[in-house]
Amino acid sequence: MSVKFKYRRIPDETIRRLPVYLRGLLFSSQMGYKKISSRGLAEFVGVNPCQIRKDLSYFGDFGKRGVGYDIEKLAREIRKILKLDVVRSAVLVGAGNLGSAVLAYPGFKIYNFNIVAAFDSDPKKIGKKIKDIPIEDVCNITKLKRRKIDLGIIAVPRANAQKTADELVKAGVKAILNFSPCYITAPKRIKVVTIDIAMDLARLPYYMPTS
Amino acid sequence: MSVKFKYRRIPDETIRRLPVYLRGLLFSSQMGYKKISSRGLAEFVGVNPCQIRKDLSYFGDFGKRGVGYDIEKLAREIRKILKLDVVRSAVLVGAGNLGSAVLAYPGFKIYNFNIVAAFDSDPKKIGKKIKDIPIEDVCNITKLKRRKIDLGIIAVPRANAQKTADELVKAGVKAILNFSPCYITAPKRIKVVTIDIAMDLARLPYYMPTS
Repeated sequence: MSVKFKYRRIPDETIRRLPVYLRGLLFSSQMGYKKISSRGLAEFVGVNPCQIRKDLSYFGDFGKRGVGYDIEKLAREIRKILKLDVVRSAVLVGAGNLGSAVLAYPGFKIYNFNIVAAFDSDPKKIGKKIKDIPIEDVCNITKLKRRKIDLGIIAVPRANAQKTADELVKAGVKAILNFSPCYITAPKRIKVVTIDIAMDLARLPYYMPTS
Repeated sequence: MSVKFKYRRIPDETIRRLPVYLRGLLFSSQMGYKKISSRGLAEFVGVNPCQIRKDLSYFGDFGKRGVGYDIEKLAREIRKILKLDVVRSAVLVGAGNLGSAVLAYPGFKIYNFNIVAAFDSDPKKIGKKIKDIPIEDVCNITKLKRRKIDLGIIAVPRANAQKTADELVKAGVKAILNFSPCYITAPKRIKVVTIDIAMDLARLPYYMPTS
């Protein structure tokens, strides 16, 4: 059955968990396992086995009762479902503390993202390099279109985040990864994922016992 | 009605959205607003108005039909619910690229977290300072107990993450913010929040049209 056909009914929450399963599979493979049960995978990833089975059932029948999943095969299928088997280009806007950490982050390569350019507005940064990527003047984002960039990564101060998003959209990116601490909007066809450490921080005290 | 009494039945997803509402409120307050409707708040935060009303209804009746919420009062209530009105101490373990960006991150102060110590295993880093915080030898985490730390922040390589978590638990932290790319376990009383950029990255291509 075509994967595309099934897209509509896969909940975002399932898509959110698939990378977690994938990592658990790679990890258990590194440890020498060939097969894994949903229960075994559950221990690696901290999601309950029923949920795992339910999530994977959206994509067909990967497991055999009593035998478990073929780790390599399932990992390959998840990669395909998540479309991680294609190399994509990315640009970073904002080369401050966070932006620099983002550039240094090995995860992009692992998931086939190739950061090809970085932009900043600070004249002191423009022309320099971080991790072999030259920092360009943010004014030139508009010229990005012909470079056919897939992903825009935003790490600018909040006041400039929406403007940057708008420019990236104009430049033709297909998705945005937003590290600026605010909600940004984009046309529906463009997926925006905001990673906001503050929001995770702010919900921690709720769970902390008062001493 | 006591807030404590109502704790049990508040879903984690609601707690996850409250900081988002809080930020939307502060933002709209900065823009000069005094009252805001759930619809107005929805535009700031990207959550639908029904959901907002439902989430806030867990804590009592803050809004008036047709008038909207008193921004300042609602913000104060959310802070109280999230227990953000108490200063808490935090330590960072792992002062690499990511750890350094974390130390430089202003969000901790905003939410009343006071990072009081940092640890690393690299002799070249031990004794130096980042953002006025001296980096201590990771061997000394065990001595942390008498300093009464509330939050442990983990930014070490994956192989050391669980070990670090165990040590932090022994040292008496009440919650853990994990930046290492893996699932870590801790006793039930300790809330663990993992921030894993890779997992957000890995689900982006799924939403990107194939060209």
